Amino acid sequence: MAWEEKDNCLYCCFTFKNFNEAFGFMTRIALAAEKQDHHPTWHNTYNKVEIWLNTHDKGNIITEADRKLAASIDKIAGI
Amino acid sequence: MAWEEKDNCLYCCFTFKNFNEAFGFMTRIALAAEKQDHHPTWHNTYNKVEIWLNTHDKGNIITEADRKLAASIDKIAGI
Amino acid sequence: MAWEEKDNCLYCCFTFKNFNEAFGFMTRIALAAEKQDHHPTWHNTYNKVEIWLNTHDKGNIITEADRKLAASIDKIAGI
Amino acid sequence: MAWEEKDNCLYCCFTFKNFNEAFGFMTRIALAAEKQDHHPTWHNTYNKVEIWLNTHDKGNIITEADRKLAASIDKIAGI
Repeated sequence: MAWEEKDNCLYCCFTFKNFNEAFGFMTRIALAAEKQDHHPTWHNTYNKVEIWLNTHDKGNIITEADRKLAASIDKIAGI
Repeated sequence: MAWEEKDNCLYCCFTFKNFNEAFGFMTRIALAAEKQDHHPTWHNTYNKVEIWLNTHDKGNIITEADRKLAASIDKIAGI
Repeated sequence: MAWEEKDNCLYCCFTFKNFNEAFGFMTRIALAAEKQDHHPTWHNTYNKVEIWLNTHDKGNIITEADRKLAASIDKIAGI
Repeated sequence: MAWEEKDNCLYCCFTFKNFNEAFGFMTRIALAAEKQDHHPTWHNTYNKVEIWLNTHDKGNIITEADRKLAASIDKIAGI
């Protein structure tokens, strides 16, 4: 998946078959985020999940913590 | 909780203690939404969950399906 | 996946790479179960999910509702 | 909630109003477990969640990691 740098965030949009698949994906990301103590900003409508990653504590810039979570998300997505 | 009518949506913002509590809330809404076959548009960052409800199939207006899901969400939130 | 008939239940055991994958699977089943208004009996330890399906209301026998949920679970598992 | 010591496990059974509430509880425990890198053995049917905690790596005995997760679960249950 191609994460873009956009407004000081890593941004990616994922599209699934339905809500069931989209929310299963979100739950797996939630588990990874909580483990890494680093959380996404995300938006969902039905089968579409948009994700923005940046690091609030460092002044809302992209850091290593964001790249690590993006890599976990790609792995969950099977990319 | 006071749902507002905003841009042809029912809109509400919920704030929790942490991500764990926010995502537990989202999971319960996901189950209710799937059961009602009517899904929210929602946005989450850490402990904050914003929800917009309208009915795509009816031309993005607020319908009875939105009011029903809003009532379920209030119940889950313990309101 | 081979569901077995065992003690008047459809039974199956699924093994995953880790807890993240196992619980993502469980969340997707939870959504399907709530939609079908028919729920599993299940057991999880880390990467292992055991599922028993039967129909309480019909005297704990296997019914069409169980076969339908089993088919949904297989679909979620990618089988 | 009274956790019992049973077969070298901390054991507790929680009962909820419905599946929605039970699975919301399980999701919050899943997030806590993944964060603590310590996972429950658990069993669910509809509104009932049974949990066993012990530490596999230490020879299936009750350790501090189990007491910590039990305390987190009590907090999630609002006890």
